[in-house]
Amino acid sequence: MQRNGDSAPIRVVVDAMGGDYGPPETVPGALAALEEHNAEVILVGDRDSVERELSRHNAAGKAVTVVPSQGKIGDDEHPVLSLRHKPEASIAVATRVVKDGQADLLVSMGSTGASMASAVMALGLMEGLDRPCIGGPFLGLAPRTVMVDMGSNVDCRPALMLSFGALGSVFAHRFLGIENPRIGLLSVGTEEAKGNRQVRESYQLFQESHLNFVGNVEGMDFFSDKADVVVCDGFVGNILMKFTEGLGSALGQYLQERLSSAIPGGGASGLIEELWTSMNLPRKMGGPLFGVNGTVILGHGSSRADGVTGAIRTGVMCVSLDMMGEMRRELAALPRSSAAG
Amino acid sequence: MQRNGDSAPIRVVVDAMGGDYGPPETVPGALAALEEHNAEVILVGDRDSVERELSRHNAAGKAVTVVPSQGKIGDDEHPVLSLRHKPEASIAVATRVVKDGQADLLVSMGSTGASMASAVMALGLMEGLDRPCIGGPFLGLAPRTVMVDMGSNVDCRPALMLSFGALGSVFAHRFLGIENPRIGLLSVGTEEAKGNRQVRESYQLFQESHLNFVGNVEGMDFFSDKADVVVCDGFVGNILMKFTEGLGSALGQYLQERLSSAIPGGGASGLIEELWTSMNLPRKMGGPLFGVNGTVILGHGSSRADGVTGAIRTGVMCVSLDMMGEMRRELAALPRSSAAG
Repeated sequence: MQRNGDSAPIRVVVDAMGGDYGPPETVPGALAALEEHNAEVILVGDRDSVERELSRHNAAGKAVTVVPSQGKIGDDEHPVLSLRHKPEASIAVATRVVKDGQADLLVSMGSTGASMASAVMALGLMEGLDRPCIGGPFLGLAPRTVMVDMGSNVDCRPALMLSFGALGSVFAHRFLGIENPRIGLLSVGTEEAKGNRQVRESYQLFQESHLNFVGNVEGMDFFSDKADVVVCDGFVGNILMKFTEGLGSALGQYLQERLSSAIPGGGASGLIEELWTSMNLPRKMGGPLFGVNGTVILGHGSSRADGVTGAIRTGVMCVSLDMMGEMRRELAALPRSSAAG
Repeated sequence: MQRNGDSAPIRVVVDAMGGDYGPPETVPGALAALEEHNAEVILVGDRDSVERELSRHNAAGKAVTVVPSQGKIGDDEHPVLSLRHKPEASIAVATRVVKDGQADLLVSMGSTGASMASAVMALGLMEGLDRPCIGGPFLGLAPRTVMVDMGSNVDCRPALMLSFGALGSVFAHRFLGIENPRIGLLSVGTEEAKGNRQVRESYQLFQESHLNFVGNVEGMDFFSDKADVVVCDGFVGNILMKFTEGLGSALGQYLQERLSSAIPGGGASGLIEELWTSMNLPRKMGGPLFGVNGTVILGHGSSRADGVTGAIRTGVMCVSLDMMGEMRRELAALPRSSAAG
């Protein structure tokens, strides 16, 4: 849905029950976003829990409404089956608010699988796509390198990889302001012949496309400025993202031990906090879902209020920049057989 | 080849031309190993360059011999073709020294592809295997987690994945002293149904095997003590390894900037150096090649002398522990159709 004009507030619907903490973090996170943007917030969740948090945070008079829902879908539940069995679960209700044109943007910290499935089922996929993906920068140490897919799409055909590249390129251009983003395929060597079958076949498609394809890149190239968009399937992307998360924790512990003696007066903690954020960019800004007919930002389940605010910030920017319209146009420019990945 | 007895020195052949630096680093690295072990060193390389380094390091009277070779095979050359065209290249000659029974152990910092191909062609694969792999701990922050494969084997069939698990398990048991090592398959979720087709099919094979399979593990589980051996194909393994390397550099730079003001008197540098090593374990200890009929340790091309010494240390330990014999026995215990991956 296209926005009516820059003067109208952006309407943000938040799955208030989502994430590990629910309303005690999602509600203040959403309220904080109101201070930053010309926005209205719709909180979907258990009415009592949500209103209790609202009153705790003096929300009276603010641009907040509550839409009640029943229950939530957990990380351990089957996304599609649960959506069928619990049509009033918070994520299902929240997605319908967008579908019905009552919101411009959905933000969820809940089950990634359920949020993706709900978005695909209720909002539909962009023309020519058969799976959505999640993309964006994922490392504070490489904040201008976009990775697609982080959404656990496994066994992707080359045509789907090409559409990941196209979507990531639009994001890098619009969101990060990078002109003509360079797209690299993640592989085990830079030569065309290097890589698994998926990458070798995708290489051909990328080379024949209109995209600014710079060839294969390697694991170290997230940090080397060889490509602005790194394309991999969601198997590799998910492993890299979780690996980085685990490494960040291990590193934090290690540095805590080593630094607390070296830096007097608690200075170590601030640095480690900063580093932790650097290792977990999606925790700070959320991960935009690409390819569905609606702006959807998925946050990390363990996000606190500031993560919710950050995900809303990302979403507001996507809406303001008409990211979706540009993505649709970019997909339409791909060869017909390619977009249907 | 089995060792004759604990009293005989271990004979180490080093591809002296290998790596980014060649003799100026490989020669002193090899000499330093003589101080640590009951060993003899055979240096294969350009006679003049090697002898120049030997005289520079007062090697007279030490257990060192030089075997001349002509040229080397670079990272950018096709491994198999180059070996055919340059049969006197340092890696080819060094591998023949092992094949001829003149050495117990080969250490190379040269092109990984050429070293692997040379080992397979000259020494042959263990019964039932059709590709070798590289395994070992790769993160100082998770020094007791073995990853297999780091050797860039792409598009691996499930049976090959199973043999990676078996080989990694022997390494974890013998080298790290872990009883009945727990083996996990790297995937995007812990449930059996999670993962790409390769992982889902491999899951079945692992479950039916005699190995101590603990199911799927995720990217963060390198740090979580859920598995001692993490099995992935070489596409993912290589990407993870290079990603970690790039991250280590980026992190070092970041910390240098942030810490140099916080820690007075150059204390930051030592810490960063330590961290760098933590991120690059194969640079310190080399990566053992599993599955060929000979003990072969491959080092990182950018290794300095201490990396060469470390790779020799790893190799000496593998020989002393009869790692190869145990690996052969473990592979023989796999179902016949499995080992032939």
